[in-house]
Amino acid sequence: MPSPQAPELLPIGIVTISDRAFAGTYEDKGGPGIVAALQDFLAVPWRPEMRIVPDEQAQIEAVLKELADQAGCSLILTTGGTGPAPRDVTPEATLAVADRVMPGFGELMRMASLKDVPTAILSRQEAVLRGQSLIINLPGKPSAIRTCLDAVFPAVPYCLDLIGGYRLETNPATCVAFRPKS
Amino acid sequence: MPSPQAPELLPIGIVTISDRAFAGTYEDKGGPGIVAALQDFLAVPWRPEMRIVPDEQAQIEAVLKELADQAGCSLILTTGGTGPAPRDVTPEATLAVADRVMPGFGELMRMASLKDVPTAILSRQEAVLRGQSLIINLPGKPSAIRTCLDAVFPAVPYCLDLIGGYRLETNPATCVAFRPKS
Amino acid sequence: MPSPQAPELLPIGIVTISDRAFAGTYEDKGGPGIVAALQDFLAVPWRPEMRIVPDEQAQIEAVLKELADQAGCSLILTTGGTGPAPRDVTPEATLAVADRVMPGFGELMRMASLKDVPTAILSRQEAVLRGQSLIINLPGKPSAIRTCLDAVFPAVPYCLDLIGGYRLETNPATCVAFRPKS
Repeated sequence: MPSPQAPELLPIGIVTISDRAFAGTYEDKGGPGIVAALQDFLAVPWRPEMRIVPDEQAQIEAVLKELADQAGCSLILTTGGTGPAPRDVTPEATLAVADRVMPGFGELMRMASLKDVPTAILSRQEAVLRGQSLIINLPGKPSAIRTCLDAVFPAVPYCLDLIGGYRLETNPATCVAFRPKS
Repeated sequence: MPSPQAPELLPIGIVTISDRAFAGTYEDKGGPGIVAALQDFLAVPWRPEMRIVPDEQAQIEAVLKELADQAGCSLILTTGGTGPAPRDVTPEATLAVADRVMPGFGELMRMASLKDVPTAILSRQEAVLRGQSLIINLPGKPSAIRTCLDAVFPAVPYCLDLIGGYRLETNPATCVAFRPKS
Repeated sequence: MPSPQAPELLPIGIVTISDRAFAGTYEDKGGPGIVAALQDFLAVPWRPEMRIVPDEQAQIEAVLKELADQAGCSLILTTGGTGPAPRDVTPEATLAVADRVMPGFGELMRMASLKDVPTAILSRQEAVLRGQSLIINLPGKPSAIRTCLDAVFPAVPYCLDLIGGYRLETNPATCVAFRPKS
């Protein structure tokens, strides 16, 4: 008689993009900030696929491709590298691996962050589709990460349904995900 | 003595983009939804140039070009094919036939739809100019179509003035179009 | 003994883009409108680098490059040429000289202008980075210029810090610029 199988843990890509976090001269707070938000939101078994890369476009592209194409991550969240500083190349790397662009995510995340700080417009955050994966750029600061995820996460499960990704369920006390009835 | 001429009916392109509507396995509700909204809004004689095409980029591009370049449609409204599903290629087709992009339309339509559903950010709607025509992507659902048109239609007549299109007049009880005085 | 040096005046590029203003058949009101707003906002010694060019993409690109690369303008503000009319090519010229695009500026300027007129969505305003310069497209009308600058200027000084531009200080009575503490 086969032993009962452990429930499958859905892999979610979490990518910290930061020269200093990669070099170890700075404690990564963005990655753990994303994990904390997802622990709050999700009502399905999941596991983080954590990566830390420097602000180098080629390396960011490589890790995004690996998570989407090999690691089975239907959802990939990045933190860091979205501002106007010369080393900030996360949006360029994200667009470079995209099949299609989802402009509504960046618009709404900037609008939501604007309630906190006027410099929210400096974020160049993008969200894109690559195959059956949704990639969303988040800011570097944990408080800004939470603001952005609160704004857009209700649309994430249905987006994954539409692109053929895994099925996410959320805890309605923390995130009211929306799926049309039809 | 010549008989009195019938008033010229301004042709407005209405394009339903849907594999199922094209195959006849699904009743097109998007096209009639656009017609109903325009009947409410417009105070000029007009006629719909209706087209139904499948979710194929080349066919969508061909019908947009035909309506803009041959059928004299200064205004072309599409419905369907703007989401993240693999067959949704309306934005790509629209951008491919564009001379110039009008980012403010998509931004405002997503913002307006967000009041109804959080998944409004999944719409990749675009609006573009091709020669003397304005092409606007609308959602597939009639209620979402109306939300979007309520938001952006007040700017449409002046846009057509500026690109050398025909002159639209609206019924101020249903749509307060704005034209600057100068 | 050397005489006391005059304080350095920070050069700010102000570019009026208008066939009629260039031909002298129309008094430029956009450029002076920008100067008036900056006089209100800024608490540092500065001087305008004024330019007037026709609605010709190559000429607009040339003047933007000159102001960014030779005239030392970390901030360049344009007025005019952002609408849908055939001669409106300011956004195309701006994107053509860009290293990177800052989508949040255009989004917020359109949203702010929308409170005044529904035709705000017809503006195709962009903001971009070129080297150590930030270039922002503004509308043609002085009242709309002020609306847009009120919305985005609080984020401009920190943006210039991040790209290695000069340090701007604002008068907090007219513009509360934001710089994060870290």
